[in-house]
Amino acid sequence: MTAATGPVVALSGGVGGAKLARGLDRVLAPGDLTVIVNTADDFDHLGLHVSPDLDSVLYALADLDNAATGWGRRDETWTFMDALAGLGGETWFRLGDGDLAIHVERSHRLRGGDRLSAISDDFRTRLGIAARILPMSDDPVRTIVETAGGDLDFQHYFVRDRCEPAVLGFRFDGATAARPAPGLLDALADPALAAIIICPSNPFVSVDPILAIPGIRDAMVAASAPVIAVSPIVGGRALRGPAAKMMAELGLPATAQAVARHYGGLLSGYVIEATEGSEAPEDYEIPVRRTETVMTDIASRERLARDVLAFAGRLVAG
Amino acid sequence: MTAATGPVVALSGGVGGAKLARGLDRVLAPGDLTVIVNTADDFDHLGLHVSPDLDSVLYALADLDNAATGWGRRDETWTFMDALAGLGGETWFRLGDGDLAIHVERSHRLRGGDRLSAISDDFRTRLGIAARILPMSDDPVRTIVETAGGDLDFQHYFVRDRCEPAVLGFRFDGATAARPAPGLLDALADPALAAIIICPSNPFVSVDPILAIPGIRDAMVAASAPVIAVSPIVGGRALRGPAAKMMAELGLPATAQAVARHYGGLLSGYVIEATEGSEAPEDYEIPVRRTETVMTDIASRERLARDVLAFAGRLVAG
Repeated sequence: MTAATGPVVALSGGVGGAKLARGLDRVLAPGDLTVIVNTADDFDHLGLHVSPDLDSVLYALADLDNAATGWGRRDETWTFMDALAGLGGETWFRLGDGDLAIHVERSHRLRGGDRLSAISDDFRTRLGIAARILPMSDDPVRTIVETAGGDLDFQHYFVRDRCEPAVLGFRFDGATAARPAPGLLDALADPALAAIIICPSNPFVSVDPILAIPGIRDAMVAASAPVIAVSPIVGGRALRGPAAKMMAELGLPATAQAVARHYGGLLSGYVIEATEGSEAPEDYEIPVRRTETVMTDIASRERLARDVLAFAGRLVAG
Repeated sequence: MTAATGPVVALSGGVGGAKLARGLDRVLAPGDLTVIVNTADDFDHLGLHVSPDLDSVLYALADLDNAATGWGRRDETWTFMDALAGLGGETWFRLGDGDLAIHVERSHRLRGGDRLSAISDDFRTRLGIAARILPMSDDPVRTIVETAGGDLDFQHYFVRDRCEPAVLGFRFDGATAARPAPGLLDALADPALAAIIICPSNPFVSVDPILAIPGIRDAMVAASAPVIAVSPIVGGRALRGPAAKMMAELGLPATAQAVARHYGGLLSGYVIEATEGSEAPEDYEIPVRRTETVMTDIASRERLARDVLAFAGRLVAG
């Protein structure tokens, strides 16, 4: 298998995307990966700025992620939450003791005037991560989930209400005024870029917010490198999270094909689960690679990363 | 031994004072104790409002204090600090995982507009504490330690620099503009008050800041109840903390007598260690009770509390 060489940009939300980002970081030359991370899930909780997707990517790439829970840090303790409950604090959002450090330190630096992108870069360096990790923007963007019961902040929908309310739509408050993080458009415009990879993250609430920042989608379309998405839908379900449920509520079939259509003309290639759906490759208007997309361990993350990069290489060569 | 009955007010700093406060809360009728706590040690750390003395009193009275360390919570874990170090955060002030809950929740409520006194009252209620716990003021007061090397914030002097700089003096920034916490002056003016007890806390940096709030010292002098201090000096040393070192640096003998003199005309009675000094009782201008003041366990806290209350009762009867 020939892996694409040279710089690669990946777009990622939280856990699912972070797994592929980790695989990419392992198989690419050190420093060749830039991960653009959704920050529309960010929220203020207990006076702390929490960036769930940035943290998932940082933990995954630092090999600190918790395989048992699928979120948070490995070897976590919960003394804080127990004590907080005793003081009458809000406990619907579970903050592990180790995880708290990143929220407290990031919040402290933000209040001191540091930018989210600069803080993220310092954290990834301190955590020994070779890849560059860029929040999509230093400006605040907030996903609002529109439901029959009214608008919900994303974390209230996602964590507190366990994705139970049926969604009518989404909007990304602040997106149109937000600027891409420093260096983000340059990374996409790099003529040496080998691939732009949309990780198997939720298209509606992880990838769409990134694409909603003015300039990012255009830069992806204009890039010399192929744009390849990895489908998060396997067997009519999302491996993780509410993507399939959202699709049903939005009147879309919960298929890999519907996700590709959702991305419109953005994709040059599409990676789907080997066993997925009944569509023939010609049902897609773009080249499709069928492979094993379920990442259960580090070996499968690396294997999928190599597979996607090889696919990108063939698209360029082809 | 006859204990004084009725309401009692205690003035307390951190650990040493909190031990006696705990003893008083155990031997008095539920709700008869009001503890006025120094807040001039409060500081902002990592964007959190930390109230070390309030916390020591809350933990001691909730039976959550850590006998092994002498500060912080029992059964503490340290996952946060380890993770914070990995992110390049400041680690000179040790924040336990459970302890963090009180800082995060208090800071969150303060930012929401709640007063420190209201938060403290809610915390003590939730922690099942019968005693009323009052910060000396809801207004910010900050102890500045004047040293040859310049002014130091108290926690920088106390924790970061381990009390090493020689002190020239102290000042309490904000004290003259600060108002006693709601209910504080009423507690001192209660005609039923049985005693006002100055706990064996550091006179310079724990008790003096309380006395520096306009109105508090006057209310103590005007109170119908006797004002009794318990000396923190045993055998020429402070049982805990830098009181004796400060006295030497200020040109004072490190004796119980010098502490009594420091409080000036405020005291009606004084409790000192049974073995303390060579002074005859007549060397003090006020009645002195010699007893065991070292509190090594809950029994000795209760015993000293009963002893101090009985002494107060005799002063009133006498």
